[in-house]
Amino acid sequence: MQSSQIQATLERVRSNKAFELFVVAVIIASALLVGVKTYELPSTSQRLLGWLDHLITAFFLTEISIRFLAEARRRDFFKNPWNLFDTLVVLISLMPIDNGDMALVARLVRVFRVLRMVSIVPELRVLLSSLVKALPQLGYVVLLMFIIFYIYAAIGATLFEAINPVLWGDISIALLTLFRVMTFEDWTDVMYETMTVYPLSWMYYLSFIFFTAFAFLNMVIGIVVNVMNDEHQKLRKQAALEAHEPTLADVYRKLETLEQRLAQAGTDAPR
Amino acid sequence: MQSSQIQATLERVRSNKAFELFVVAVIIASALLVGVKTYELPSTSQRLLGWLDHLITAFFLTEISIRFLAEARRRDFFKNPWNLFDTLVVLISLMPIDNGDMALVARLVRVFRVLRMVSIVPELRVLLSSLVKALPQLGYVVLLMFIIFYIYAAIGATLFEAINPVLWGDISIALLTLFRVMTFEDWTDVMYETMTVYPLSWMYYLSFIFFTAFAFLNMVIGIVVNVMNDEHQKLRKQAALEAHEPTLADVYRKLETLEQRLAQAGTDAPR
Amino acid sequence: MQSSQIQATLERVRSNKAFELFVVAVIIASALLVGVKTYELPSTSQRLLGWLDHLITAFFLTEISIRFLAEARRRDFFKNPWNLFDTLVVLISLMPIDNGDMALVARLVRVFRVLRMVSIVPELRVLLSSLVKALPQLGYVVLLMFIIFYIYAAIGATLFEAINPVLWGDISIALLTLFRVMTFEDWTDVMYETMTVYPLSWMYYLSFIFFTAFAFLNMVIGIVVNVMNDEHQKLRKQAALEAHEPTLADVYRKLETLEQRLAQAGTDAPR
Amino acid sequence: MQSSQIQATLERVRSNKAFELFVVAVIIASALLVGVKTYELPSTSQRLLGWLDHLITAFFLTEISIRFLAEARRRDFFKNPWNLFDTLVVLISLMPIDNGDMALVARLVRVFRVLRMVSIVPELRVLLSSLVKALPQLGYVVLLMFIIFYIYAAIGATLFEAINPVLWGDISIALLTLFRVMTFEDWTDVMYETMTVYPLSWMYYLSFIFFTAFAFLNMVIGIVVNVMNDEHQKLRKQAALEAHEPTLADVYRKLETLEQRLAQAGTDAPR
Repeated sequence: MQSSQIQATLERVRSNKAFELFVVAVIIASALLVGVKTYELPSTSQRLLGWLDHLITAFFLTEISIRFLAEARRRDFFKNPWNLFDTLVVLISLMPIDNGDMALVARLVRVFRVLRMVSIVPELRVLLSSLVKALPQLGYVVLLMFIIFYIYAAIGATLFEAINPVLWGDISIALLTLFRVMTFEDWTDVMYETMTVYPLSWMYYLSFIFFTAFAFLNMVIGIVVNVMNDEHQKLRKQAALEAHEPTLADVYRKLETLEQRLAQAGTDAPR
Repeated sequence: MQSSQIQATLERVRSNKAFELFVVAVIIASALLVGVKTYELPSTSQRLLGWLDHLITAFFLTEISIRFLAEARRRDFFKNPWNLFDTLVVLISLMPIDNGDMALVARLVRVFRVLRMVSIVPELRVLLSSLVKALPQLGYVVLLMFIIFYIYAAIGATLFEAINPVLWGDISIALLTLFRVMTFEDWTDVMYETMTVYPLSWMYYLSFIFFTAFAFLNMVIGIVVNVMNDEHQKLRKQAALEAHEPTLADVYRKLETLEQRLAQAGTDAPR
Repeated sequence: MQSSQIQATLERVRSNKAFELFVVAVIIASALLVGVKTYELPSTSQRLLGWLDHLITAFFLTEISIRFLAEARRRDFFKNPWNLFDTLVVLISLMPIDNGDMALVARLVRVFRVLRMVSIVPELRVLLSSLVKALPQLGYVVLLMFIIFYIYAAIGATLFEAINPVLWGDISIALLTLFRVMTFEDWTDVMYETMTVYPLSWMYYLSFIFFTAFAFLNMVIGIVVNVMNDEHQKLRKQAALEAHEPTLADVYRKLETLEQRLAQAGTDAPR
Repeated sequence: MQSSQIQATLERVRSNKAFELFVVAVIIASALLVGVKTYELPSTSQRLLGWLDHLITAFFLTEISIRFLAEARRRDFFKNPWNLFDTLVVLISLMPIDNGDMALVARLVRVFRVLRMVSIVPELRVLLSSLVKALPQLGYVVLLMFIIFYIYAAIGATLFEAINPVLWGDISIALLTLFRVMTFEDWTDVMYETMTVYPLSWMYYLSFIFFTAFAFLNMVIGIVVNVMNDEHQKLRKQAALEAHEPTLADVYRKLETLEQRLAQAGTDAPR
């Protein structure tokens, strides 16, 4: 009885607008803290920031506990991946920051507390999930692009290794070099170097650029078309529903009724 | 009585086509003046330009006064943000250009007189307002993008500060460096440098490029879809209105009339 | 009589498929000639190429004459801008190539004979005219973009001239530098240099990049939307025409006929 | 009789899901092998990889033989270009890798075995063929772009050869330099160099960038519009078919039936 009372109270706290805004404010504060720490600071400020950090960690721990205890069915709490993410980030933040090797890791984990912004603001969560949903459509284009990259990297690592091992030493370095070529980042320097040995190697680079640009273009167009089709269908349904505008099917049905009535009238009339 | 007569006269002046064209001509002249002043000039020319500048300032002052006095309800004049902008630019231009420190500021304010072109030509005003209207739709994508930038900058400033403080010294410099990486500007130089210490840091750059490119793409597609939906609906309404082409709703209404008439005919016929 | 006979004969020659293909072949040959001349060649080859060049010029002169004489109403010949362009290019090619100063100009004019490809192949002509037609729609966006460029160039030439006169010496050089920044070409080098004097000048570059990118994006979207609307309307009309698919207007007209007939039947029936 | 029995058995093997997955696994293994070979390896590992390579070659030979023998009408086997490609790649792999000059070629051919991934996975095959199908639509835009490139390269090779023969030596080098300018790769270095001799040569570069960007934009928009029209029509047909939603033509036909019936009723009624 008492437990369910606590749960009800906490649920009220959790869905309180002021509480939500305060959580967002603390997240922003923690983000600023992360930013401020990258500056050179006098030791008094650093000690102050350390205390602020402990405070924020304590608040996040309390907040997550409230969320967890406010959940009616606690087993479902961790089924929501955002809850799992929040809990992990907060728990890892509890790790002491003192000892040498782990200090860097502890500081990096604190950075990810900024991502809690996404888990709190529903609009950002929707946006991110719609971004993630768009990914599987790209599956095969990405695979095709990787095959193109892999073949060119294998050829590059085979032919150009002797020319510049820093850029073409093995297939993983060659993949990185090809990504650089795709972003047009000083790609002519890479090309001119290999052209001194293989004068026709411009064909290698130009064909690579054409293939990847074409596949990339196709990918973008694919997404645009998909998104627009979805929007189009959504819009059409919405328009039909909201404005009570009749569809062609409604008109057809009306005509069938008319026909039946006319048939009836035709048989009735001679009587 | 006399005041309203003056107002009516000025309103006629203001809406005179020749007056409008002359204002545009003076704005273009002031723009050219701003451009010419960036060249090295003999002192005689400079004195001439100074006089021209005073003339233009005087004309702009007159023109704004005419606009203000031509307004029937003078309190509404400054409710139009363009009027406010015009008045501010003209008033600040009145500031004397002589004294040392302020000379630069005075010259810069004169540059903004070119923007009066936008406030005078209606088509540019429409274009700019439609651009501004497209911004709020981007709100959450821009926020998400900033969160991505902030997290990566915090990580970069933490890990890479010791490697190159010029690029990764604190979070604001790191944000600038990441913007540079996003524009692919010598990004491999930045990467190769950190890869000497952290050989896996290519993952940092590549994941950052993928995230931002993906979010950017999403933003562009979002705008395209929005604009096209708007256009689509506008076009549909316009087509229906202008060409008096019947809509499905018209057809449906016609059918209902027919049905009623038929029902009437059905009950009439047996008589 | 004889003149009209000649005209008819020439018209038959002009519209002969083989003649057209031969003209295309000669244009391609003249294009190759232009390309070959950029290589270092032994003097025998050069003399051969000179002869070939004279041959091609002669052929082009003959061809243009045929086109001109084949025209039924010769005054209309130069109303077609392509004919005018062809004639000009051919006539200027007649200029002797020998004398020093003009030799370069004569060689450059020969390069434009490659453009005759566009004037001969109808598909290319259609493509180019559709490209040109898309330009006026861009008018005001281009003007807005130029105003942005001009204001930034004026500011840049005022503030940064003392830092690097090679990049910011006057407004025309500053415009070129800003175009360079827009293409992201070593733009950070330009920025880092001015940031040593004005540490906040990154705001100048970033705001410029955002404004121009946004205006450019808007321009592209504007074209896409325009083209798609045109396509959409064309497609709809075409579909209705080709497949004899009835439009909503047809259905509506049919319903009106039905209604009239029904009204007649209603008045007839009681009889 | 026995031969057709073998054929039936092999056909069952070929269409076996496990067999297909095993082939994909072997292709991935061969891809990894190609990648691993680009690293520096101890000679024991190299001998092991050599054996693995022989194994994979043997497996591919067996697999292609099964595919060939499983085909009911063996003459049709090579009509499928993918089969031809697979056979060629496998047969060339049989070439011994030992002798000096050919070793490199043999290694490169092994790289193309990765492309067998595309010939095996149907989704990739569909994707590639849809990419290839989009190419002919681009025909004339690509031709126009090549003409632009060619004219500019001819002008560049004529005017700028004396300034920098490495970049503008002949028309083919000039084409490569122009492609570099189009990708904005250090294009200002190229421009600043020629501007020292021809101060107005910025017009050459800027006009080139505008023309190619405009033609490229047009190409992209062309593809987007084409793809979206196709999608649109497909979607409309699909919607009409799947949902049995009536089209305007159905409605029209219904109305004609109604009209006939009404005409009949009209003639019947007076009786």
